[in-house]
Amino acid sequence: MYDQNCLFCKIVQGQEPCVKVLETEDFLVIENKFPTAPIHLLVLDKQHREKNDTISGAYKNVGYWDSLFTAINETIRYKNLDKTGYKLVNNGAGYNHFEHEHFHILGGSENEPGGTT
Amino acid sequence: MYDQNCLFCKIVQGQEPCVKVLETEDFLVIENKFPTAPIHLLVLDKQHREKNDTISGAYKNVGYWDSLFTAINETIRYKNLDKTGYKLVNNGAGYNHFEHEHFHILGGSENEPGGTT
Repeated sequence: MYDQNCLFCKIVQGQEPCVKVLETEDFLVIENKFPTAPIHLLVLDKQHREKNDTISGAYKNVGYWDSLFTAINETIRYKNLDKTGYKLVNNGAGYNHFEHEHFHILGGSENEPGGTT
Repeated sequence: MYDQNCLFCKIVQGQEPCVKVLETEDFLVIENKFPTAPIHLLVLDKQHREKNDTISGAYKNVGYWDSLFTAINETIRYKNLDKTGYKLVNNGAGYNHFEHEHFHILGGSENEPGGTT
């Protein structure tokens, strides 16, 4: 699944540059070009799965989320955010800028980055 | 797994009051008593799994995250946040107030609630 008009797909395909942090079979973790915290990473699905599909339950109980959180948790430990603080964010249905499913990992500040939850 | 000193455990056990939104076999979704957005829900693990354990990968590839996101996605759809906007947050390693694993679901505002990611 690949959408030629999708920036995240282009990054996954190597057609747009990125600073890669970590990679698993199914996910690519990169630095956010427009960070809102000292550490601001994006966890990108390597396939063009859209938020509409993930949130509708299309990937319910098939190992999708287990696989995603393997990548997320490995990234958090790799960046030592399990020692210094992590905030994981997933925006959708209008709060997001890209439909291609992705999670934000924020950290690097003393207090909760990106606003108080 | 139950910690008698944990507020979330007490809520799950019915020893502390809560406004229940939705329940699955493994997770309980309640309204946050101290909301930072018009809609602010907490997805609580029914067992006392601590963030240290979840982030360390102790629940890697065993259906834990699939099961959690079934509860999260059902809640988002139930509250129509898949139409109006949702922000999912998980804080840890100091940004959180409770070690008992839980996720926040925020919504109900026109713009991204709880600060910009």
